[in-house]
Amino acid sequence: MKKSFFYLTLALIGLGMLAASCSSKDESNATAAVSAADATINTIMQRKSVRSYTDSTIAPELMESMLRAAVAAPSGMDVRPWHIVVVTDKSKYDELFAGNFNMEKFKQSAAVVIFCADTTVTRPPREDPNAPAVTSPNPIWRDDMGACTENFLLAAEAYGLGAVWTACYPFHDRMDPVANYLKLPSNIVPYSIVPVGYPNGEFEPKDKWDTTRIHYEMF
Amino acid sequence: MKKSFFYLTLALIGLGMLAASCSSKDESNATAAVSAADATINTIMQRKSVRSYTDSTIAPELMESMLRAAVAAPSGMDVRPWHIVVVTDKSKYDELFAGNFNMEKFKQSAAVVIFCADTTVTRPPREDPNAPAVTSPNPIWRDDMGACTENFLLAAEAYGLGAVWTACYPFHDRMDPVANYLKLPSNIVPYSIVPVGYPNGEFEPKDKWDTTRIHYEMF
Repeated sequence: MKKSFFYLTLALIGLGMLAASCSSKDESNATAAVSAADATINTIMQRKSVRSYTDSTIAPELMESMLRAAVAAPSGMDVRPWHIVVVTDKSKYDELFAGNFNMEKFKQSAAVVIFCADTTVTRPPREDPNAPAVTSPNPIWRDDMGACTENFLLAAEAYGLGAVWTACYPFHDRMDPVANYLKLPSNIVPYSIVPVGYPNGEFEPKDKWDTTRIHYEMF
Repeated sequence: MKKSFFYLTLALIGLGMLAASCSSKDESNATAAVSAADATINTIMQRKSVRSYTDSTIAPELMESMLRAAVAAPSGMDVRPWHIVVVTDKSKYDELFAGNFNMEKFKQSAAVVIFCADTTVTRPPREDPNAPAVTSPNPIWRDDMGACTENFLLAAEAYGLGAVWTACYPFHDRMDPVANYLKLPSNIVPYSIVPVGYPNGEFEPKDKWDTTRIHYEMF
């Protein structure tokens, strides 16, 4: 009887712990559901400019995921003006980035990603691969490129990488060496340059919330 | 003896289930850790243009969270050119959006968010509130505004809302009625217009991955 009482107690403790565990699992699932949105918001709020990187390289599948995120950006009239060049050969940086003044961040980074834009309208061939491309100046290619660069930066932040948006267009002292080195056609312009790598140190995002910039109904 | 064997079995089953539950909890925690990044990537990949909305309104704290995400965008030289106007008074839309051709999406939406830009450099006063503002043409305000608009769209997607980037700048037929109605100073231009609301229907993101747009080391 003593023995069976012991086993009964053991069974009850086991079942009690199981019940507690199940209940805490439910809470954890509920938290996970909420934090799908929160995780995105958190990434956006935590994104910061990182200009110093460790020696670690970036796994190719991580880089591809970030590039996929970049080209998932919205594009006016679905033109998708982007061409993205990923460069890791540091021996070329002095020539490629002759127009930029902070070479140190480029040389430290695992990769430098150059976001270029086709400034002429070219409908994506997938819509009708046999149709001739419709080409004319695109007045809003720059806006697509901003979203494309930001998507990449957010994906980098999500993966624990550090990156920094470096303006290229419309500064010809920065654009020309890049265009010359990459032999870009005249309708393709280098828009932004993003070094990316694992952060060397701790970096904090800026708090940019300012209610004087937010207006309701009227400016 | 039979009874104690029964309790022993019960205890073992209980402990076995507990162990299984703990192990599955560990897996679930591991999944949750991975999916903080995955959730962000998923939001970026799932963002789509939504032009039809239900009658549901947007909770003010959700709108504020999206606006906070918008102004967390990177900004060249930390200028933060954005001014954001949230409009919900549909009786003004015919005048305000006289230059836009798809009024239906605006009238259906819970709110129309107008992203404006101060095109002159104004250092944030928080850095030195007593210093005079440094004002001059800012050659890269447009890039900040692209990132700002994209952050808002991603936050909307994260919250299960639908939105669509509607170009305003540099089209004067769209910009002028907005600027006139809002009485914008000449250095503030309406850049993009984003109607937002709960999606009316199912919408799918486009697959924009195209390896011909991705280059390694050379264009």
